[in-house]
Amino acid sequence: MLDQRPHDSAISALQALLGDRLVTSQADRALHGQNESYHPTLLPDAIAYPENTQEVSEIVKICAEHTCPITPYGAASSLEGQHLATKGGISLDTSKMAKLLTVNAEDLNVVVQPGLTRIALNEELRATGLFFPLDPGANASLGGMAATRASGTTAVRYGTMADSVLALEAVMADGTIIRTGSQARKSSTGYDLTHLLVGSEGTLGIITELTLRLQGIPEAASAATCRFNSVEDAVNCVILTIQSGLPMARIELVDEMMVRGFNNYSDAGLPEKPHLFVEFHGTPAAVAEQSISFGEIAEEFGASGFERAEKAEDRTRLWSMRHNAHQANRALAPTKGILSTDVCVPISKLAEAIVEAQRKSKEMGLSCTIVGHAGDGNYHCGLNVDTSDPEEMGRAKAFAGMLNESALRLGGTVSGEHGIGMGKTAYMHAEHGPALIYMRAIKQALDPQGILNPGKILPATNQ
Amino acid sequence: MLDQRPHDSAISALQALLGDRLVTSQADRALHGQNESYHPTLLPDAIAYPENTQEVSEIVKICAEHTCPITPYGAASSLEGQHLATKGGISLDTSKMAKLLTVNAEDLNVVVQPGLTRIALNEELRATGLFFPLDPGANASLGGMAATRASGTTAVRYGTMADSVLALEAVMADGTIIRTGSQARKSSTGYDLTHLLVGSEGTLGIITELTLRLQGIPEAASAATCRFNSVEDAVNCVILTIQSGLPMARIELVDEMMVRGFNNYSDAGLPEKPHLFVEFHGTPAAVAEQSISFGEIAEEFGASGFERAEKAEDRTRLWSMRHNAHQANRALAPTKGILSTDVCVPISKLAEAIVEAQRKSKEMGLSCTIVGHAGDGNYHCGLNVDTSDPEEMGRAKAFAGMLNESALRLGGTVSGEHGIGMGKTAYMHAEHGPALIYMRAIKQALDPQGILNPGKILPATNQ
Repeated sequence: MLDQRPHDSAISALQALLGDRLVTSQADRALHGQNESYHPTLLPDAIAYPENTQEVSEIVKICAEHTCPITPYGAASSLEGQHLATKGGISLDTSKMAKLLTVNAEDLNVVVQPGLTRIALNEELRATGLFFPLDPGANASLGGMAATRASGTTAVRYGTMADSVLALEAVMADGTIIRTGSQARKSSTGYDLTHLLVGSEGTLGIITELTLRLQGIPEAASAATCRFNSVEDAVNCVILTIQSGLPMARIELVDEMMVRGFNNYSDAGLPEKPHLFVEFHGTPAAVAEQSISFGEIAEEFGASGFERAEKAEDRTRLWSMRHNAHQANRALAPTKGILSTDVCVPISKLAEAIVEAQRKSKEMGLSCTIVGHAGDGNYHCGLNVDTSDPEEMGRAKAFAGMLNESALRLGGTVSGEHGIGMGKTAYMHAEHGPALIYMRAIKQALDPQGILNPGKILPATNQ
Repeated sequence: MLDQRPHDSAISALQALLGDRLVTSQADRALHGQNESYHPTLLPDAIAYPENTQEVSEIVKICAEHTCPITPYGAASSLEGQHLATKGGISLDTSKMAKLLTVNAEDLNVVVQPGLTRIALNEELRATGLFFPLDPGANASLGGMAATRASGTTAVRYGTMADSVLALEAVMADGTIIRTGSQARKSSTGYDLTHLLVGSEGTLGIITELTLRLQGIPEAASAATCRFNSVEDAVNCVILTIQSGLPMARIELVDEMMVRGFNNYSDAGLPEKPHLFVEFHGTPAAVAEQSISFGEIAEEFGASGFERAEKAEDRTRLWSMRHNAHQANRALAPTKGILSTDVCVPISKLAEAIVEAQRKSKEMGLSCTIVGHAGDGNYHCGLNVDTSDPEEMGRAKAFAGMLNESALRLGGTVSGEHGIGMGKTAYMHAEHGPALIYMRAIKQALDPQGILNPGKILPATNQ
C-alpha cells in the first residue's frame, strides 16, 4: 500500500515486532470489521496476532507510544459491537492465544488463554470428569465471555462469568502485565480487580489468561420440554419454580414466534405455543425428585405435552435447537439483520415485562421472537430488521428503548449478558446515574490516553 | 474541652449538623478505639451517628472540605483493625442506620441499612421462610461484612459477601450518593462498582444501603460431627468430599487444640482429636443421600464417633460451640490477646498447609488452635499472645508471616475473609505485585484527598 494509512507509525513498529502476524490486507480488515448484529461494518487499520502475553504487552506499549487504539477480538460473537474498531487502529486478534494451559482437576479449575473457545475447552476436558458449565449459545472465546460478563442458559444454576473467573492475567494500558485473584476459592485482600476487569469489555485492560472454575459432570442429567397456553402461564411457572428453590440447571422460555422459527429452521415439529425447555443435574435420585417437583408446579399452570430427554444425544438435540435460536431467528427473514434486546428484570416482574413486550412489538408491526433465560429474569426479543431501512431501524430502536426504560422502571438492567459495547452507551446514564462519574474516573485513571477499545461502555461526555 | 482538638473545625461543623449525635466524650472515643484482636487502641477524635444516607453525604462533604479522615464503624468485630481511626478524625458509627428497609420475598432479596447485624436480619426474616445464609461467627453488621468481603462457615455452599450483595448505595469521597447494581439477578452494563466496593473496607466509599440475596430455608437440615486420628486424615476427607461435588452446607475443621478449648469453655466433652463439623441442607431425601455419601468418604479416612444433630436446637448447640471459637481460644489464656491468621489455599494444598502450620507453631513454642472453613481451603490459627511482650509478639508475627508466604507459594492468598485492614498491608505487594499500582490509581481517582479510612489496605508507598 502506497497511500498513508492512519496510525501508520504504530503499524510500522508493530510490523517490526510481529512480522507477518501484523496484517493490513483489505480482506482481513473486512473480516474483522463485521458483526452478527445490526451494527455497521467498521474496519480496523491492521490486525495483530500475538502468540503470548509478552507480545501483547509489547503491542500495547507501541500503541501507547503512538496513541493508537486497540480493540481486542475473540470469536466476534458479541452482539453490541464490542469487537469493532470504532476509531480504527489495531484489532488484537487472540486466535493464536487459544491454549488450555493447565487443568487443576483437584482444585476444580483450569487456566486458559483468552482465544480458547468454550466448546474447545469442554472437548479438551472430556477425559477429566469435569466441565465448564457456562453456555451463551455461541461458541464464544473465553476471553470475550469474561470481557462481556457473558452467561447464558446455565447461569441460573452455575452463575455468570462474574462467578466463574477465579483469577486473571491482563495487560494494562501502559503495557504492564498484572495478575488478579488467586487459585484459592475466595480472598479478601484489597480491591477486586478480577471483577472490575470482567465485564469491562477490554476498556481497562486486555485479558491474556483466565483461571476458570469447573464443575464435576453431574452423575445424572435429564431435560424436558413442555408447552403452555399463554406466555404468562409459562413465566409464572418459572417464577414459582425459582421461588421454590428448585436447583434448575436450565429453565428457558421460548415464545410461540420462536417456536415457529425452530419449526422452520430445524423441523422441530412443535406446536406453536410458548414452551419451557428445562434441565436437571444431580444424583439420579435428586434428578428424579426435581423432575417430579417441577412437573407438579408446571401442571398448576396448565402445562402439557411433556417430552423428556434423558440420553446425552437426546439432550444435545434439544439444546442445539435452542442454541440455533439466533440462526432460526435470522431464517424468519433471511435478508434482514437481527436486533436482539437483552433486558433483565427482577424475576417477580418477568411475566409483566414479557407480556408487555409481546403486545408492544405487535402494535409496532415488528417481527419479534422471544427467548428467555427466564430463571434469571433475562429475556431477548429478536427483531428481524432491514438495517438499510431507516424507518424500520427507527421503529426497532424505539421498541428496544421502551423495553430498556421499562426494565429500569421495574428495578432491572438494560443488559443481562450482552453488555454495552457501542450499542447501549446511551442508556448508561439512565441506569447508573451519578455512579457513571466514578466509572469515568476509573477509566481515566487506568487508561488516561483512552487507547483501549474506545467508544465502548462509556457514553461520549455530551450524551 | 478547652484545648484545641485535631480536626477541630470539621468537628464544629459536624456538631452544627448532628447536634448530640456528634460525640467527643473520652468514654465513647475509647470504646470506638478498641479492637478484639492484637491491634493497638486508636482513638478517633469524635464519633458521628448519622441516621440516614443524606446525613452521611453531608458528613463526608464537611470532612472533605476540612480534609478530616472518616473511618466507618459497624459492630467492631473486624480482626484486622478495619474500624480503627489510624489517623484520628471521625468514626462514622452506623448503629443508628440499622433498619431492614424492604423484604422482596418474591425476588429472594432484602434491602437493609449497613448497621443491621446478620442475626437481627435473620430474626426479622423468621416469618418469611427465607434466610440470609452467611455466618462469619461474630454478629457482624451487614455493612461491615460487605466492606471486608466476609464469609464464614456457610460460604462453601452459599458463597461469600462478594456473591451475596446484589446492589449497593454508597457515599463517595466527595459526598456524592451513588447506586450500583440492580434488583435483577445479573447485569452486564459497565464497570462492576458493586464488587469494587465490596471488600474495599470503606476506603473507596461508605456503604449506606445493601441489597442482599436470600435463600429459602431448606426443607430439611442435618448436622454431624466426627473425629479423625490425624488432622491430615480430616483434611483429606474434606478434599475428597469437595472434589466429589457433595453440596455441603458447612464443612468445618477443628483441630485437637481447639477441641481442648471447646472442652474448657463449653464443657463440650469431646475427645481431644481433630474433628469435622458438617451440615447438609436440602429436601429430606437429598439430605439423607448426602449424609450417607459423606459418611462413606469419612470412613475411608478412619472417621469415628459420628454424632448427628437433626433437631434445630441440637444443631444450634453444635454451631454455637463452633461460633464461640474466638472466646474459647481466648479462654485458653485469658490475660492474653488473640492473633488470628486467615490464609486460604487451593483445596488440594490444604492438608500440606495445615500439617506445616501445626508443626511450625509447636517448634516456635506458640499456643495455637486451628479452625478451618476447610471446604474453601481457608483456615485460622488462633495464637494466644501477650500483646505487651515484644518477644512473644515478634514470634507470633514471624509465624503468621511464614504462613502468609507459604500460602502465596501454594497459589493462595493471605486473607480468605478477614481482610487487610491495618494488619496485613505489608503483604499486599507480595500478593498482588504490579496489580497494586492499579489499586493505588483507583484509590487516587476515587478519593484523591485520602480521607476515607486512611491507613487501610494500601501499604504506605515506602513499604
